[in-house]
Amino acid sequence: MYEIKVEPLTRKTFEPFGQVIEAEAYAEMITINDGYATRYHDLAEVDISSSGGRPLINIFRGRPRPLPITIHMMERHPLGTQAFIPLHRDPFAIVVAPAGEIVDVSVLSAFVTNGRQGVSYSRNVWHFPLLVLGPDEKDFLVVDRGGGGDNCEERYFDADRVGTLKL
Amino acid sequence: MYEIKVEPLTRKTFEPFGQVIEAEAYAEMITINDGYATRYHDLAEVDISSSGGRPLINIFRGRPRPLPITIHMMERHPLGTQAFIPLHRDPFAIVVAPAGEIVDVSVLSAFVTNGRQGVSYSRNVWHFPLLVLGPDEKDFLVVDRGGGGDNCEERYFDADRVGTLKL
Repeated sequence: MYEIKVEPLTRKTFEPFGQVIEAEAYAEMITINDGYATRYHDLAEVDISSSGGRPLINIFRGRPRPLPITIHMMERHPLGTQAFIPLHRDPFAIVVAPAGEIVDVSVLSAFVTNGRQGVSYSRNVWHFPLLVLGPDEKDFLVVDRGGGGDNCEERYFDADRVGTLKL
Repeated sequence: MYEIKVEPLTRKTFEPFGQVIEAEAYAEMITINDGYATRYHDLAEVDISSSGGRPLINIFRGRPRPLPITIHMMERHPLGTQAFIPLHRDPFAIVVAPAGEIVDVSVLSAFVTNGRQGVSYSRNVWHFPLLVLGPDEKDFLVVDRGGGGDNCEERYFDADRVGTLKL
């Protein structure tokens, strides 16, 4: 059993995997609506139509997994990006590995959000499914791809090579 | 001065203007992630790429307007849909008018959300800019269109033909 340490999520540490979606000053900020709103502009790549797909807006309602959280598989989407934005103010966990053919417990990175951050996974970036923390189910807005083609690949780990998330 | 009454937002009453984005049982629901999540699938039309645009993920931080809220103009986006999803649990107000050349105070409809609902405006549907309620600024996730072309048309009302929102 391998322990996977979590680190705080930042724009920089998440760069190999995609973008952090948050209203922070590093974003392009545009004052709109006669000053009654600020637009934090174009926060994440949405690469969906180049594979002949169309963007979908969905809500995922996630339920907590038993503790300790076991990372026994990873998945990736070869045809499009996938963004998760929390519709609540609680941290959630993220486990990722770089795009590439090799994915096992030795190449995982894990993060915990600050309660306001969302993320977008780049195409082919390996990730564990949605990881809600705490006792309750939680909702997330998800922007991903609809259309033809096989857009989900899963890779299961050998039983003696699974990880547990050290929160 | 015209008073505009607000009504509760429902999927049905909002149909002429776009879609309500909410995790309700009328949506297509798909169990995913070994039962640890439910996907409320494809909740709103995202019509962006047909005009040569690309989807953008943004956060709008809205600030409350002085009361009573005065509806003195409307705007519309001819090249794409625009979706607003609250990143908080407070109601917000929506003022819309059907797509078409005529827009004045006599054709407005107004809604207040239940605190969890988002909306997507169809192309060319007239709408007032983001209307935060309460004393504090609030964040919304916005999915809209980037790319060339003029995607914002504004129509200002005559001073004796403005409306006020009756909340």
